[in-house]
Amino acid sequence: MQDYQFFELGDVVLQCKKTLRDVKLAYKTYGTLNAARDNVVVYPTWYSGQHYENEWLISEELALDPRKYFIIVPNMLGNGLSTSPSNTPAPYNASRFPEITAYDNVKAQHRLVTELFGIEKIKLVTGWSMGALQTYHWGAMYPDMVERILPFMGSAKCSRHNFVFLEGAKAALLADAQFKEGWYTSPPERGLRAFGRVYAGWGFSQAFYRHRMDLEAMGYASLEDFLVGFWEGLFLQRDANNLLTMLWTWQHGDISDNELFNGDFVEALGAIKARAIVMPASTDLYFPPEDNEFEVRHMPNATLQVIETDWGHFAGGPGTSPVDIRVLDEALRALLAS
Amino acid sequence: MQDYQFFELGDVVLQCKKTLRDVKLAYKTYGTLNAARDNVVVYPTWYSGQHYENEWLISEELALDPRKYFIIVPNMLGNGLSTSPSNTPAPYNASRFPEITAYDNVKAQHRLVTELFGIEKIKLVTGWSMGALQTYHWGAMYPDMVERILPFMGSAKCSRHNFVFLEGAKAALLADAQFKEGWYTSPPERGLRAFGRVYAGWGFSQAFYRHRMDLEAMGYASLEDFLVGFWEGLFLQRDANNLLTMLWTWQHGDISDNELFNGDFVEALGAIKARAIVMPASTDLYFPPEDNEFEVRHMPNATLQVIETDWGHFAGGPGTSPVDIRVLDEALRALLAS
Repeated sequence: MQDYQFFELGDVVLQCKKTLRDVKLAYKTYGTLNAARDNVVVYPTWYSGQHYENEWLISEELALDPRKYFIIVPNMLGNGLSTSPSNTPAPYNASRFPEITAYDNVKAQHRLVTELFGIEKIKLVTGWSMGALQTYHWGAMYPDMVERILPFMGSAKCSRHNFVFLEGAKAALLADAQFKEGWYTSPPERGLRAFGRVYAGWGFSQAFYRHRMDLEAMGYASLEDFLVGFWEGLFLQRDANNLLTMLWTWQHGDISDNELFNGDFVEALGAIKARAIVMPASTDLYFPPEDNEFEVRHMPNATLQVIETDWGHFAGGPGTSPVDIRVLDEALRALLAS
Repeated sequence: MQDYQFFELGDVVLQCKKTLRDVKLAYKTYGTLNAARDNVVVYPTWYSGQHYENEWLISEELALDPRKYFIIVPNMLGNGLSTSPSNTPAPYNASRFPEITAYDNVKAQHRLVTELFGIEKIKLVTGWSMGALQTYHWGAMYPDMVERILPFMGSAKCSRHNFVFLEGAKAALLADAQFKEGWYTSPPERGLRAFGRVYAGWGFSQAFYRHRMDLEAMGYASLEDFLVGFWEGLFLQRDANNLLTMLWTWQHGDISDNELFNGDFVEALGAIKARAIVMPASTDLYFPPEDNEFEVRHMPNATLQVIETDWGHFAGGPGTSPVDIRVLDEALRALLAS
């Protein structure tokens, strides 16, 4: 049974000047909106993830407690639930699906929050990885609405190195002739598996593998078991065109690349009024703390809290590292209380 | 005109218990062997590189001065000049080319050095990356013969993370149906290009890309220009089966995985009598200094000298970073003088 709803946005003109028709934003809410409408948390999804894959941080034992907060998880455009290459009719289906920015995503989410729920203030926006990218966008685009942000293991702008890592994963997928430039009739399995194997070296750190945490913390029987069971499995369940749509969104992520800031990144960072805790993982290979340091220096109300960990990008990710998730949860708790 | 020679090894039984027939080791020498035969430097090649691509460290201005030293550069088996998938007749050609270890390589090189040149002592073995892997093997396999080693940006054993990075690059190549499980009749270009694009994020560091050194230090016009011009170009000129043979050699590199040490890595490190300087680059993403720290702790006569650099794995590599190459060259000079 479907555990989420759709918000209908009608036809939407995107930043790329194409019109996406009958746009649907899939979302799920947790908890109850109070009468003052001031207990709202927005928690966007990560690369390829869907709302239920955000739930590791939502529970009565955690900061994101649905007894206290009304938590909205909007699914990213392209993630297979919201409007995506895989569910859009011709002519804008498959390879013709338009380029979507994080700005487009957050504008759509803003309509959900304001038009459907009549919300005027958001207590907190938070998210992991590409969820963090959307979190920064919320802060820069709606500074008078967003009171707090906690982006973790992400950045306000895709770094050039991060762009290159993604180019590698993309090239592995495109190398599969079965992909047929996006016009496949059955999934390009070999390419999706290769995509997962390329990702494997990036998602966790050198120290993670050195300490055999794939075996000893995650319970895989061998390194190959981890590569197939975790990494190939993760991306085999996704649609290739959806992955490429979200990958484009990621690569072109930049809070300043819009009519509000005209590419002035420092100005866009400076526009984020929200009280912010920015949390990188010390060993994250594609969102290294250095990029966040730059951001925090230019955000008026932000502090940097690096999680010291061997888990790399997955430190605060979906249910992987209990110790790091506790650190993250405590920061969420402190920020919400402040 | 061919600038190198062949040493004929005849039939060689490999560690994998297959017989490679009529094995040829391609090599080039620089300088003159003195009468005492005690001015010898052995300088093995790196992953996919050929002898002329080792020459950036050989010159009258540098420590590896051919007026003083007799420098032997043996080409790695599988690199397209020495016996390789691309030049071996059936039945052991292409995908049937046997698995070659660094141990097999160094045994072959030892025969070249002793049988052809009658050399009994080696003043220095040095090498970059997989050249470093062979350097460590020299030290552990021939401790009474090798007086000094300087492995740079490499390790004595392929780490699990390094193995995973290579799996990603390999998967990208294999995803190309044109590869035909190794039985291609024309090069699997798309796979080779994808291989290069995956490699791009690993070869240089986050800081390298952050500081736009691809443009400002290496002279490319754009990031895409660098990805195509440098990375796709580097691997398009290689043979796919050769790349996979050397990749297997790399992934299975381990100085202790042989009948001398039976897998006891610490014992093998302890066997290296040579005076050693081990030089990682601080930002190397697949040979991080931590792995070398472990090695140096167990080598009786070694010091660790980390090159502080933004160049990542290419810090001391072929002609890329003049500043880092000077640091490396000074270490070579100091070690040779000691």
